[in-house]
Amino acid sequence: MNLNVGIIGATGHTGEMLIEILLKHPHVKITGLYNTGKTSGRICDIFPKFKNQLQLLCTQPDFEHIRKECELVFLALPHTASMDFAPKLLSLGKRVIDLSADYRLESNSIYEQFYKTKHKDKEGLKQAVYGLPELYKAKIKNAKLVANPGCYPTSALLGLAPLVSVGVASKGATIIVDAKSGVSGAGKKVEKDYLFSEIQGDFRAYKVDTHQHAPEIEQVLSKLAGEKVKVTFVPHLLPIDRGILSTIYIKKPASAAGKPKDILALYKKFYKSEPFVRIKPEGEFPRIKDVVGTNFCDIGIKDSKDLTIIISAIDNLLKGASAQAVQNMNIMYKFPESCGLL
Amino acid sequence: MNLNVGIIGATGHTGEMLIEILLKHPHVKITGLYNTGKTSGRICDIFPKFKNQLQLLCTQPDFEHIRKECELVFLALPHTASMDFAPKLLSLGKRVIDLSADYRLESNSIYEQFYKTKHKDKEGLKQAVYGLPELYKAKIKNAKLVANPGCYPTSALLGLAPLVSVGVASKGATIIVDAKSGVSGAGKKVEKDYLFSEIQGDFRAYKVDTHQHAPEIEQVLSKLAGEKVKVTFVPHLLPIDRGILSTIYIKKPASAAGKPKDILALYKKFYKSEPFVRIKPEGEFPRIKDVVGTNFCDIGIKDSKDLTIIISAIDNLLKGASAQAVQNMNIMYKFPESCGLL
Amino acid sequence: MNLNVGIIGATGHTGEMLIEILLKHPHVKITGLYNTGKTSGRICDIFPKFKNQLQLLCTQPDFEHIRKECELVFLALPHTASMDFAPKLLSLGKRVIDLSADYRLESNSIYEQFYKTKHKDKEGLKQAVYGLPELYKAKIKNAKLVANPGCYPTSALLGLAPLVSVGVASKGATIIVDAKSGVSGAGKKVEKDYLFSEIQGDFRAYKVDTHQHAPEIEQVLSKLAGEKVKVTFVPHLLPIDRGILSTIYIKKPASAAGKPKDILALYKKFYKSEPFVRIKPEGEFPRIKDVVGTNFCDIGIKDSKDLTIIISAIDNLLKGASAQAVQNMNIMYKFPESCGLL
Amino acid sequence: MNLNVGIIGATGHTGEMLIEILLKHPHVKITGLYNTGKTSGRICDIFPKFKNQLQLLCTQPDFEHIRKECELVFLALPHTASMDFAPKLLSLGKRVIDLSADYRLESNSIYEQFYKTKHKDKEGLKQAVYGLPELYKAKIKNAKLVANPGCYPTSALLGLAPLVSVGVASKGATIIVDAKSGVSGAGKKVEKDYLFSEIQGDFRAYKVDTHQHAPEIEQVLSKLAGEKVKVTFVPHLLPIDRGILSTIYIKKPASAAGKPKDILALYKKFYKSEPFVRIKPEGEFPRIKDVVGTNFCDIGIKDSKDLTIIISAIDNLLKGASAQAVQNMNIMYKFPESCGLL
Repeated sequence: MNLNVGIIGATGHTGEMLIEILLKHPHVKITGLYNTGKTSGRICDIFPKFKNQLQLLCTQPDFEHIRKECELVFLALPHTASMDFAPKLLSLGKRVIDLSADYRLESNSIYEQFYKTKHKDKEGLKQAVYGLPELYKAKIKNAKLVANPGCYPTSALLGLAPLVSVGVASKGATIIVDAKSGVSGAGKKVEKDYLFSEIQGDFRAYKVDTHQHAPEIEQVLSKLAGEKVKVTFVPHLLPIDRGILSTIYIKKPASAAGKPKDILALYKKFYKSEPFVRIKPEGEFPRIKDVVGTNFCDIGIKDSKDLTIIISAIDNLLKGASAQAVQNMNIMYKFPESCGLL
Repeated sequence: MNLNVGIIGATGHTGEMLIEILLKHPHVKITGLYNTGKTSGRICDIFPKFKNQLQLLCTQPDFEHIRKECELVFLALPHTASMDFAPKLLSLGKRVIDLSADYRLESNSIYEQFYKTKHKDKEGLKQAVYGLPELYKAKIKNAKLVANPGCYPTSALLGLAPLVSVGVASKGATIIVDAKSGVSGAGKKVEKDYLFSEIQGDFRAYKVDTHQHAPEIEQVLSKLAGEKVKVTFVPHLLPIDRGILSTIYIKKPASAAGKPKDILALYKKFYKSEPFVRIKPEGEFPRIKDVVGTNFCDIGIKDSKDLTIIISAIDNLLKGASAQAVQNMNIMYKFPESCGLL
Repeated sequence: MNLNVGIIGATGHTGEMLIEILLKHPHVKITGLYNTGKTSGRICDIFPKFKNQLQLLCTQPDFEHIRKECELVFLALPHTASMDFAPKLLSLGKRVIDLSADYRLESNSIYEQFYKTKHKDKEGLKQAVYGLPELYKAKIKNAKLVANPGCYPTSALLGLAPLVSVGVASKGATIIVDAKSGVSGAGKKVEKDYLFSEIQGDFRAYKVDTHQHAPEIEQVLSKLAGEKVKVTFVPHLLPIDRGILSTIYIKKPASAAGKPKDILALYKKFYKSEPFVRIKPEGEFPRIKDVVGTNFCDIGIKDSKDLTIIISAIDNLLKGASAQAVQNMNIMYKFPESCGLL
Repeated sequence: MNLNVGIIGATGHTGEMLIEILLKHPHVKITGLYNTGKTSGRICDIFPKFKNQLQLLCTQPDFEHIRKECELVFLALPHTASMDFAPKLLSLGKRVIDLSADYRLESNSIYEQFYKTKHKDKEGLKQAVYGLPELYKAKIKNAKLVANPGCYPTSALLGLAPLVSVGVASKGATIIVDAKSGVSGAGKKVEKDYLFSEIQGDFRAYKVDTHQHAPEIEQVLSKLAGEKVKVTFVPHLLPIDRGILSTIYIKKPASAAGKPKDILALYKKFYKSEPFVRIKPEGEFPRIKDVVGTNFCDIGIKDSKDLTIIISAIDNLLKGASAQAVQNMNIMYKFPESCGLL
């Protein structure tokens, strides 16, 4: 009862993580590894750590090979590259989980504004399901094309969804997401900014209130709220490899003051059936070390009269990318949701 | 024209930094080193890096020695310890710069709430001057007892003072200080929380909205504003040794919307004569690496209609502690303000 | 077909790692968690990362509970503590894998010299099998008591065994092991030396040629060589959490010059059936990143006329401790050797 | 009594350090900053940390400007670039301190072998003085052209010179230098190998026994010994920014066994007038933290019958490059040797 999967973009960070996870998944066989850059050869030569574990060749994408060998394809490609592959894969009858941003934003103009190119696959966009399992599990089950959420949006949305869903983020609320991410969030860009000597001992904000993940967060929250929700989003770069911690401030509108009474209880109830969201007891808050290497999202809450503070932590490469993609796969193929992820 | 200075608490982080700075100061001679713990011996044996530079013995505090040898005394002691020393030193006619929190808070009840002990020196408290040179230079000049500001308050106050002083933080404003600090802020506590294996690769919030520096920030801002100012303060622990970066969010009250028009210009003007505050050009923001090892505070600004974001960065051990103390000393003794600090 | 295992010392580094590995092992059920310190409670409260995964209580060691619930017991205790538990467990008919040093050294006087106490269980010592699978697999199969090797010895012995076994380390050879380890090698000691502010940005040697692992290395090599082998061992502390890299220099004696001709071939042959030793191609050398999180030992070789350089890398907590212990368990219970470890 | 100095290569690591040091030097004025890459503008815009301290423009090298404005020129250029500048500067009557490798190696064929290009300035090579003050102070005083030593050679040579000078490294000795360096040793290369995600948490050897600094070490030692000295040199990359620690093993030849009796005393005597070499007491060894940010070289010694272990530590950018260059300048211009360096 093996599922044959392929990965396009196998040599990037998220591709590497997908391989690591899927190698241990009891119901999956990796049958195709592809990448679009210059690197090629056996994956265990490209990543010596896979030696003695996986001999598969990593080649340029080969649709004929995919047609015969893969049932599901993960696209672990840079933004704007996925939409070149998804339509063809869907036309071959394959199911697709896309880890890029290409199928996340419903608005073409917002996509163009942030990703600097026109969207090429409006057909695909229509059928894409936003792959945040805690909110959209039912739709993911039957999806042909899943748009796996961004890392920052995963951490922000899981932190905000319960409050927004009870109307506290209605008109007049102020929502600030002060997010901090390890450098692997930037992929493997060989740029001065990501040199050890630049990152080590440093900390800085970047794309202050202009990051491409802000509209993704606002789109999902607005749907949940049933009205336009605005978020101030300031990402920062941590001198660590992996992990995101978001400190979220919600200044409630006067109309919402005092309700709901017990926010901690609200969160516990909202996530009570979710295997990968853990709510901290009162007075405790998450830390990155507890979630790195896992698919968990830990959430801590501090509530006061007019301001609520939510802190959420995830591993940006796992719950923020590759492990969440496998969680989506598990849902799509009716494996236990946490199969291969605990 | 040498000033003879002593340091009580010479073996802690801030004491060590004071020695480093003062060794290079052209008008200062270190004539007394004292500590209250068990460590004793020559300072160059306690800190091998001072070998070939300073042979002085570090002893238990010796008022007779201080009386004869020191003109100015730095108290680099833990909170609640300084108030045991300051009155005696003042009575000997010495001037004192206290790096602890003991003389910062005007309210005894707030002091007791956060530092868990009654204040013992109300007399000293009355004459203490809050040593933030950019706000209180005139008073520092003649101060007998300077309360050197906390590291977080320095970063928050320099980031907020110009806006608060023009009334934008009047009633109805929301002020959030999301601060991130390196671990040296915690001194040299030998506790599990500060082990390498706990800090490295991690990031977490602590004392969420309950940190003892919040009332210090609110006290100074309230004076500047002429009305009570409330701040939400959430500190976080960075996996680096030194540096604080504070991301400050000011939701302006409806009454203040749109004014002042040009906040960048406001900040440049406010700090135009200050040698240690540097305002970043529009679109640029500070990073910790640029201020570590210096007495500078770098500030960046992002303004929008109803929300202003201010980001400030300092070295917590320098502008946030020991170098600011030397800056205060320079002012008190009419040395050039940046003497020994550039 | 589950094996019920207990862990005494479940709250230390190696205990934590054992839990992590065994949770994913398809043939194992953790049925007892014990520790000897003050910490107690559910393991998922002690290590929040195990929340939603393992609810088991961690209690003081309880032999009655062990008697009924556990078949195999891991001792993840500090040195000198294990020998208080092993005899009793063996008398209950349990098999034991001891991760401490207590059953590694055959000489009581050397044990006493390095561990500062007399050995209390000479009976156990006699039946203990040194658990380095690549050298002693046959004996491990039937062992009642396995002495799991130290982390440094694992890295040194795997690097040296092939050369020593062909007689190159005969009289007159000089063997130097310049080893570098991450701080987790020191366990979770709350001491000044292991604070973040002491380790980060630093690097230093310690116990220069006096480390307790040197006699362990020499004992095994001497047996392999059939004559006394002397090793100069200098460990260093790396500013990382996990991993050991040993750079080993072998100055061959005149008698051995030029033989064996092809050392790389010798190593490949020696380890050809070993799933966890990977020999690098000529001109390539191991790095810690490739082995962290795995049970692999990577080895690189540079040979010249009279000096051979061997570089080996392992994860000190896995191949150097907990994963190697599970590898030994697999061998003892006839599970596939790499079961749960890939 | 100011010395006007220029720096060619002001935007690299060693150029940046030179500026930092010279800004605090009481007898120096920086009058020219030049670089050969694309970066240009005011140095305080290129390095924001110099804001409020140095406004000087950094331009392409301009010999006319140098002729008028600079008396001494530091060449902080990549290897093979310096020899394009030195001859012209010397012909203008300027004195030159070259921080590259261009004037260190006397043998043209060895230079060509390691730096992959023919040497272009044999005239300059003849008059160049090797700028290791502890060995060549007298020659440096009158040098026109100083070849500032490499960082690894500085740490190895200071560790080996006393022993070699008494003939212990005569024929038959084995000398191994196992060196570990922070990444700033590689300059500011924007390459995958130096990304934060590659370095952090990692440790590895590189250029095993093939590094270009080995012949530099052997050349100086051979001169000291009066016979050919061979060194096995294995550098490693530490996950820190700055610092080198070299662990040096000397297997004495049979002829030298037992002499000198007291190596610690030998070292103390050898360096007794040197302000920047500190010998550790018996049983203590250097650590990188004690020398980072300083011009000191700390040395620790462990001697046994036939093997001596020497451990030396420096800051690769300071004693290993820029501060040593300033030390040379002090000697050349008869300033106190440690002026501006303590």
